[in-house]
Amino acid sequence: MVYNIGILGMGTVGTGTVEILLNPTGRHPLLTSIKIKKIGVRSLDKPRKITLPPGVITTDLEAIVTDPEIDIIVELLGGIEPARSLILQAIAAGKHIVTANKAVIARYGDEIYTAANAAKVYVLIEGAVGGGIPVIEPLKQSLGANRISSVMGIVNGTTNYILTKMTTQGTAFNQVLSEAQSLGYAEADPTADVEGLDAADKIAILSSLAFNRRVKREEIFTEGITKIDSVDINYAAKLGFVIKLLAIAQAGDTPNQLQVRVHPTLVPHNHPLANINDVYNAIVVEGDPIGQVMFFGPGAGSGPTASAVVADLLNIVGVLFSSGKTEVLDPLLSCSHQEYCEIMPTEAISTRFYARFLTQDVPGVIGELGTCFGKHNVSLESVVQTGCQDNVAEIVVITHKVKEGDFQQAVQEIQQRTAIIKMPSIFRVL
Amino acid sequence: MVYNIGILGMGTVGTGTVEILLNPTGRHPLLTSIKIKKIGVRSLDKPRKITLPPGVITTDLEAIVTDPEIDIIVELLGGIEPARSLILQAIAAGKHIVTANKAVIARYGDEIYTAANAAKVYVLIEGAVGGGIPVIEPLKQSLGANRISSVMGIVNGTTNYILTKMTTQGTAFNQVLSEAQSLGYAEADPTADVEGLDAADKIAILSSLAFNRRVKREEIFTEGITKIDSVDINYAAKLGFVIKLLAIAQAGDTPNQLQVRVHPTLVPHNHPLANINDVYNAIVVEGDPIGQVMFFGPGAGSGPTASAVVADLLNIVGVLFSSGKTEVLDPLLSCSHQEYCEIMPTEAISTRFYARFLTQDVPGVIGELGTCFGKHNVSLESVVQTGCQDNVAEIVVITHKVKEGDFQQAVQEIQQRTAIIKMPSIFRVL
Repeated sequence: MVYNIGILGMGTVGTGTVEILLNPTGRHPLLTSIKIKKIGVRSLDKPRKITLPPGVITTDLEAIVTDPEIDIIVELLGGIEPARSLILQAIAAGKHIVTANKAVIARYGDEIYTAANAAKVYVLIEGAVGGGIPVIEPLKQSLGANRISSVMGIVNGTTNYILTKMTTQGTAFNQVLSEAQSLGYAEADPTADVEGLDAADKIAILSSLAFNRRVKREEIFTEGITKIDSVDINYAAKLGFVIKLLAIAQAGDTPNQLQVRVHPTLVPHNHPLANINDVYNAIVVEGDPIGQVMFFGPGAGSGPTASAVVADLLNIVGVLFSSGKTEVLDPLLSCSHQEYCEIMPTEAISTRFYARFLTQDVPGVIGELGTCFGKHNVSLESVVQTGCQDNVAEIVVITHKVKEGDFQQAVQEIQQRTAIIKMPSIFRVL
Repeated sequence: MVYNIGILGMGTVGTGTVEILLNPTGRHPLLTSIKIKKIGVRSLDKPRKITLPPGVITTDLEAIVTDPEIDIIVELLGGIEPARSLILQAIAAGKHIVTANKAVIARYGDEIYTAANAAKVYVLIEGAVGGGIPVIEPLKQSLGANRISSVMGIVNGTTNYILTKMTTQGTAFNQVLSEAQSLGYAEADPTADVEGLDAADKIAILSSLAFNRRVKREEIFTEGITKIDSVDINYAAKLGFVIKLLAIAQAGDTPNQLQVRVHPTLVPHNHPLANINDVYNAIVVEGDPIGQVMFFGPGAGSGPTASAVVADLLNIVGVLFSSGKTEVLDPLLSCSHQEYCEIMPTEAISTRFYARFLTQDVPGVIGELGTCFGKHNVSLESVVQTGCQDNVAEIVVITHKVKEGDFQQAVQEIQQRTAIIKMPSIFRVL
C-alpha cells in the first residue's frame, strides 16, 4: 500500500523532509509506503538542492490540497495565510494534515481542529514545538495517566543562544544579537524571537495539550529578553540562578483556570532547565503521579524539524495502514478538547521576584524598602547590597512567592520614595 | 464503549496502576473507558492499600488470561515465570498485553512478539525502561525518520543514586549501598542493580527498538559499579569527567552489527548525561537528521511506572476505540523487526580508556608506559602523575579512541613490567 502526500512549501524544513523521504534506507521501513505526489512552491525558477521528477513541483497549491489522489497534506509554508486557508481546504477535501506551523495552530487551532474532527482527519503538529524533540506526541500519547500541574520550557533557540552567550562571555544583548544574525541563528527582523512571541505560540500549543483546554493566544502574557542586562546575569549567578526565557503553563486556582506566560526567569542552578544552553530546547512536564520529566534536543533546524514532520507522516500512515479509512478518530492522536480555559490575570499569579534598585547611599534605605514591601505582603528571601559608587548604592532583592499584584503595588510605592533613584530590572524567579 | 482489563500482580506498580484507574478525574478522558475486571495476586490474605469490589481479586491467574470478557492483560508480576507463560497464554487467547517486565521482554521478546504478531495483538512495554519517562513510544513513534547511530543512557536509578552520593560526599561504595538499602533505593540482594544486569535488560530492549533488530541479551557485555573507587571519581573530576553507569548501544561496522554494552563510563562534564543525578534516569538518542535528543525523568517507583503502564493501556484503548478489532497491526505500535543483529565482540570496539597505575618511583616509568601503549597502537590523550608516597607513584592516563583489543594487549604487557606495582582501575571514557 502506498500513500500519496502533497507538500506545501519547500524552504528549509520542506527540503529536509523531502531528503528523508527520498532516502529511506536505514530509516523506518514504513517510509517506503509514502510517495511524494506534488510539492507546491511559490516560484518554479528558484534553484533547488534536490532534483525531483518532472511534474512534481507546481505553483498551483489549491490543486494539491484538492487532488483526489493525495491522502496527506504536509503544510510547511509558515505564517498565517495562505497556510490557514489551504489547511482548511485540505481538511474539507478529506485529507490528513501534518504541519510545523506554530503560528497558525496557536491562533486558529480551534477552527482547524473543529473542521478536522468533523471531517474525521488527523492534524499532527510535532514539528511546531521544539523542532525535532518528541514532545507533542509524548504529551498526547504517553502522559495521559497524569494530572498535569505544569509544562514549562526553553522553546526558542535564538533567545537561548543569545542568553547563553551573554552569560558565558559577558557580552551585551545587542552585540550577541548581531553575532547570532550573522551566524543565521537570528532573523534579520528578530522581533518574534527576542520579544517572546514565538515562545508564546509554542506554549499556547503545549498548554492546550497538557491541560486539555483551548488557550487564547492573545491572552498570553509575553515579555522578551531585550531588557536583560549583564549586570543582572551576574547578580543572578552569584545568587545561584541563571536567566532563561521560559514559557510557562501551570494549573490555576480552579480546574478551568490556567496560568500561561512567557518571560525571562531566574532558574535555580540545580533545575534541569538551568543546564540547557545554546540553541537547544527543553520542555519539563510535571504531573501526578509521574513527577518531573524533561524532553531535550535541537529546537529548530532543517533536519530536526523534518524528523518531526516525517514522524507525524509515519503515525498517520501507520493508522491508515492498520485501520483503513478513519471512521472514528483515535482520541489520543486527534484533538479532544473543545472548551477554552480561563487565563489567570498576571496580578493574581504567585511567583518569586528579583528586583534591582539604584538608591542614594543614605542610612535606612534597606529598611525603607523592607517596610514598603512588607506593607504589601511581600516578604523578602534575600537582600544584597553591593559596594556603592558616586553615592549610589545598588541593592538586589529576591522575594518569597508573592501575588504579582501585591508586588507591583509595592514597587509603585517604592519608586516614589526620594531615596530610590532607579529600578532598572525586575524579573520573575522560578 | 468500555474495555475490560485484567491485572496480574498487585505490588508497588500494580497498586499505582489501580490508583490511577480508580481516580480518573483530571486525567485523560479515555481512562473512563477502562474497567478493571480482575486482579490476580498470590495471596488473598495480604493487607492492601486499596479496597476493591468483591470478586475482583483472585489467585487464579490462568482464569484471568483466558477470560473471554477481558480485552487487555496488564502483567506486573516481574521475573521470568510465571510471567512469560501467562503472557503467551493471554496472547493465544487474543488479548493485548501491557507489561513493565524488562527481564521477560529482554530474554523472551522474540517468542512473545512472534506470538503477538501472529495473534494480531499489541504488546506495549513503556514501563519496562526508564520508569515513567516516555522513551519506548517516542522511539517507536517519533524517531522513525532517523538513521539512529546510538542510544545510551543512565537506566538504573539505584546505581545512579550510589554513584551520585559517592561523587558528592566522597563516601565509599559499600557504605552508600547500605544507606541506599535502608532508604529502599536498593534491594536486599543488590546484584541485579550493582552488577549492571538490570541495565543490560533495558539496553537490550532499547537497542532492538532503536536499530530495528533483535538483540541476544546474553551477548551483552556487562560490568557493574562495585569496583569504582573514590580515588577514581576524584581523578575523573579533575580531568573533567563524572563516572556514570551507562548502557550503550551503537551502530557497528556493518549494517547488521551493533555494539551493546553496560559499564561504568567517564562522561565529560558538558555531556547531557553528566548532570543526571540521584535516582533519575535519562536516555540520549542520536541519529540523522535529528542530532541528539534526551529523555529525562524518574526511572522507577510506583507512580512513575504506573504512569507508563496506563499510557500503554490508553494507547491500546485508543486504537481499539477507533479501529475496532485489529485485523492489521499498526506497524509503529507493533514489533516489526525479526532478524537478530550481530553483537560486536568487545575487542573490536573503539573507545577511549582511563587507567590508573601504581608504579615504582623510578625515572622513565612514564616513558615505559608510553612505549608499551604505542607498540599496540594506543595513543594517549593525557597522562597525569600525582605526588608519590613511600616510593610509589600514581599515574593516570586517558587514551585517544582505540580498539579495545589493542588496549587490553598493551595492558597485559604493561602489567609484566617490574616498575608497575598494580593497576587498580580501568574504565571506558565516552
